[in-house]
Amino acid sequence: MISKNKLKELTVYKQHKHCNEDSVFIVEGVKMCHEAMVAKAPIKVVCATNSWLQEHPDLPINTEVYEVEQDSLARLSHLTTPNEVWMLVSRNLSTTLEGQPLTLALDHLQDPGNLGTIVRTADWFGVRHIVCSHDTVSCFNPKVVQSTMGSLFRTTITYTDLPDFLATCGKPVFGALLDGQSIWNPLSPIQLPSEGAVLVVGNESRGISAKVQACVTRRIAIPNLGGTAESLNASVACAILMAQFLQG
Amino acid sequence: MISKNKLKELTVYKQHKHCNEDSVFIVEGVKMCHEAMVAKAPIKVVCATNSWLQEHPDLPINTEVYEVEQDSLARLSHLTTPNEVWMLVSRNLSTTLEGQPLTLALDHLQDPGNLGTIVRTADWFGVRHIVCSHDTVSCFNPKVVQSTMGSLFRTTITYTDLPDFLATCGKPVFGALLDGQSIWNPLSPIQLPSEGAVLVVGNESRGISAKVQACVTRRIAIPNLGGTAESLNASVACAILMAQFLQG
Repeated sequence: MISKNKLKELTVYKQHKHCNEDSVFIVEGVKMCHEAMVAKAPIKVVCATNSWLQEHPDLPINTEVYEVEQDSLARLSHLTTPNEVWMLVSRNLSTTLEGQPLTLALDHLQDPGNLGTIVRTADWFGVRHIVCSHDTVSCFNPKVVQSTMGSLFRTTITYTDLPDFLATCGKPVFGALLDGQSIWNPLSPIQLPSEGAVLVVGNESRGISAKVQACVTRRIAIPNLGGTAESLNASVACAILMAQFLQG
Repeated sequence: MISKNKLKELTVYKQHKHCNEDSVFIVEGVKMCHEAMVAKAPIKVVCATNSWLQEHPDLPINTEVYEVEQDSLARLSHLTTPNEVWMLVSRNLSTTLEGQPLTLALDHLQDPGNLGTIVRTADWFGVRHIVCSHDTVSCFNPKVVQSTMGSLFRTTITYTDLPDFLATCGKPVFGALLDGQSIWNPLSPIQLPSEGAVLVVGNESRGISAKVQACVTRRIAIPNLGGTAESLNASVACAILMAQFLQG
């Protein structure tokens, strides 16, 4: 059983700043923790009920493991209904784009639900790297972690100076912009260049910032066939563009 | 200024059942109410601050109009920060599919955010009709209304017996199913039939029900290029399929 002191020590990670300082994030619930184990994520701490621990005798070595009761789980958890298991996982960040056909770049994306959906869609289409501007919502935000449905463990997400990254990445940079060229232009439909590409999607209301726009080598747009809607949701636009680049 | 009795009478519409009984829904905030007016939605009641009313002298005749203070707006509103204007709008439902290239059908979709995003994407692509099973989340749910960003006023959404509708609609019925044929199959990529089509998207976790699957004439799927992700978000899948049918 976990000691009072240990529980107190771990409870601090409910505050995002402590996760940032120690470069870890919280994963919760049977399904998400299963995904973390399948993906061989670097799990540092497990707090779980006796029944969960009995069903999982094969935890990685070097993992701290504590048996906890429901009331202790509730103290650790962000969820309204904590669910058997809570983990602290190391953040695992790298940046190589070698051999990747398509890399996503997100400029000041703000909505955790949108980022979670984008990570899940990227995983579906085999996009392994997402590069975010420093002011993009944290992928370790608990809402993002839960809404990725496990895809977070199969995707590398980096926070960096985005104009700097784009200027030096050595690949064509496509930017989703309302005044861009239609991706379905019959004369030159958008296709993935053989050397790969970076696709930039911007902020939910302001789009791509001027500094990042300056690094875009090709401005593209999803045609507004209805004529009246103002814009598409950022995660929907990103999904349609990924599908366009990666089909066939 | 609004009377105490009138305010009390209108406050009941915060409960969904009263909206259902009177076949109305609530629209709130400067932007959404502007969209309702632009779309000439059948507005029954307007409660607004003095400044909003002065800026909008051109309200439709037959609209009940009340000047209210911020504290009265707060009593009427679902929002945490009520915003100048609150409207009660008649539900306006019809079902003709004549001349529509693509109609969406939603089978037991549960998440208000997903429905809102689907309505917004449908509007972008000029899809005018969405037919929902009776157990799909209500499009008049306040979360749906706000997340459609005005597209709700340009789309006709009907709730009906979905198997019955599909069996009698006289159009090919495409169903999004994990075991369906790839939409990007190089030998026969999915295209919109010249007579138009209905596209069915199912519940977030269980997909399309057996009864509705029995009405599907062509099972289709978005290829999982990554190999590991379990599924796509329902609104993302719906967007990619709409884009596939309506491009070019």
